Amino acid sequence: MDHSGKQGKKIKRISLDAMGGDFAPRNEIEGALEALREANNRFEVVFIGRKPEIEQILWEHNTKGLHYSIVNASQVIGMQDSPVSAMREKKDSTIAVGLRLHKDREVDAFVSAGNTGAVVSASTLILGRLQNVSRPTIGAFFPSERGVTLLLDAGAVTDCKPHFLHEFAIMGSIYAQLMFKRDNPKIGLLNIGEEDSKGDERTKAAYTLLRNSNVNFVGNIEGRDILQGKADVVVCDGFTGNAILKFAESVIGVLKSKFTLYAERGFREKLWMAMMRGTLRKILREFDYQEYGGVPLLGVKGITIIGHGGSTPKAIKNMILKAEEMINHNINERIESAMQTIQSVPSSGTS
Amino acid sequence: MDHSGKQGKKIKRISLDAMGGDFAPRNEIEGALEALREANNRFEVVFIGRKPEIEQILWEHNTKGLHYSIVNASQVIGMQDSPVSAMREKKDSTIAVGLRLHKDREVDAFVSAGNTGAVVSASTLILGRLQNVSRPTIGAFFPSERGVTLLLDAGAVTDCKPHFLHEFAIMGSIYAQLMFKRDNPKIGLLNIGEEDSKGDERTKAAYTLLRNSNVNFVGNIEGRDILQGKADVVVCDGFTGNAILKFAESVIGVLKSKFTLYAERGFREKLWMAMMRGTLRKILREFDYQEYGGVPLLGVKGITIIGHGGSTPKAIKNMILKAEEMINHNINERIESAMQTIQSVPSSGTS
Repeated sequence: MDHSGKQGKKIKRISLDAMGGDFAPRNEIEGALEALREANNRFEVVFIGRKPEIEQILWEHNTKGLHYSIVNASQVIGMQDSPVSAMREKKDSTIAVGLRLHKDREVDAFVSAGNTGAVVSASTLILGRLQNVSRPTIGAFFPSERGVTLLLDAGAVTDCKPHFLHEFAIMGSIYAQLMFKRDNPKIGLLNIGEEDSKGDERTKAAYTLLRNSNVNFVGNIEGRDILQGKADVVVCDGFTGNAILKFAESVIGVLKSKFTLYAERGFREKLWMAMMRGTLRKILREFDYQEYGGVPLLGVKGITIIGHGGSTPKAIKNMILKAEEMINHNINERIESAMQTIQSVPSSGTS
Repeated sequence: MDHSGKQGKKIKRISLDAMGGDFAPRNEIEGALEALREANNRFEVVFIGRKPEIEQILWEHNTKGLHYSIVNASQVIGMQDSPVSAMREKKDSTIAVGLRLHKDREVDAFVSAGNTGAVVSASTLILGRLQNVSRPTIGAFFPSERGVTLLLDAGAVTDCKPHFLHEFAIMGSIYAQLMFKRDNPKIGLLNIGEEDSKGDERTKAAYTLLRNSNVNFVGNIEGRDILQGKADVVVCDGFTGNAILKFAESVIGVLKSKFTLYAERGFREKLWMAMMRGTLRKILREFDYQEYGGVPLLGVKGITIIGHGGSTPKAIKNMILKAEEMINHNINERIESAMQTIQSVPSSGTS
């Protein structure tokens, strides 16, 4: 077996918050082992968490020949913990330990299905920001006619300045090039109408910045255009982005409960719904956000991927594989070099 | 037949923008005639638009004994027209004529499926604002576990001050009491987390105002809680509200196209989808926003109801019936009296 990694260099190491999700450490460990098998041991997974608990689960599985190690962390930041006080009080949390390892370049990425707010603030604090990045931004994926759309920001930056939106556009453009394999990704600005003059003060100012930027700006797009795939990357403030993301996540659940209610009407309906279930599941799969694995935090000096608390082993596996892909693409070098263009762009111009 | 109206007073008159929607004047007229039949002529419909075109369509229908009249308006504000310049240039538009009639108390309400932005600005300009209302707000309806949720603002007020959100809460509370028949409507503040301390600066400030107000404030709610019915009324800035509304409107369309794509896979799938169609339609009906008819513009000195451009006759009928209900409830008197409480609320307190 070749342990030297894809590019003949030192093998990449991906640290995983083994205690982060709602079904931790089981889902985390099972997902990681699956990722190692699927990737044929191209990288090593470093489990961060309470060693005895991790070993207990590992012991139940066949881990022969798989590349992993364990780094002990005695504390866990819960989903209800305040990110700020948790960072102060839980110095030995999985999130802090994993990110410090990443900062020290002991690992090449950090993956967590834990408290999103805590992972965002700890990543920003411990790893630091990339050059010329004002605010790191968290993404969200939406299924679309073109495959997938990246929305930035999905909740990391609530009080957004117009130039933050410009930065999100640049980071999102690089991400879509490398990870979605789109040559010249279309960047849309979320707005309440398509005309240039629409929107609140922030969005109007961002429109001008984007119009004069180097990204492939396709103009204002509306809420309805996200799923329709009018843009590969949609930028908006984190408040609006988070509200849309959470609304979207709820739609499938509500639809499912409508179907269940329908089935309860009578025997005929029950039979009918039982027959339909498989078909519906196939059709709705694209809307199941857990299938995407995690979302990237862009703009920090490192690779951080954050997953849903309820992440399945499959979601964890996908998060780890995406982390490897981001490492191999040197995404942060590309972002830093693209961010330099902000300064050199003329202050007026045509699209 | 009793022409004296429900309360034995002068019969109410509802003006309808006959040229507003994408299928005007046909859908408008057919919906209005249906409303008159269903309401047993309790009110009169005043069609506003190009008289010959309206008469032409009326001529095709049996209108015997129905209470309607026509007021000519030679111009139409199109969906793509800028609201501001349209108001300046089209003095004889259906929207301007209908709203002037309403201002002069010739009619008791104005209903339109035309250019939303134009109806909002013309209503504000021509009818004026209710006392103590800073900004009129447009609502949106969402299906929820509790029946229906009203979201304010859905796009009328983009640069929202915290106290606007407080005003929306008061107006929404009155609306939900009268129109949803909820005794003590639950008011939620849309935010990116449930904790008190969450959100952007605007939302944090609004949280404090609502916590100290007379409305039944249930605290912060998230995007996912809208469909789950955690609140009867959800308040947020018009930028976010509009983005969520348009996103929501697109979901059903995207799902339908997924089902169609699935049917194209082969004969078996096609047959299967044909069999499922009726059931799906039944289940998805609640999510079909056109079924709700129109949405109210709250905070103006009058009753304005605005419908989707693609309004069906059924939607138009529902808009007219809702307008009658709002007239009968004297909703604006109730709002003005509730708005007076803003000044008299102590500046601190507990929930």
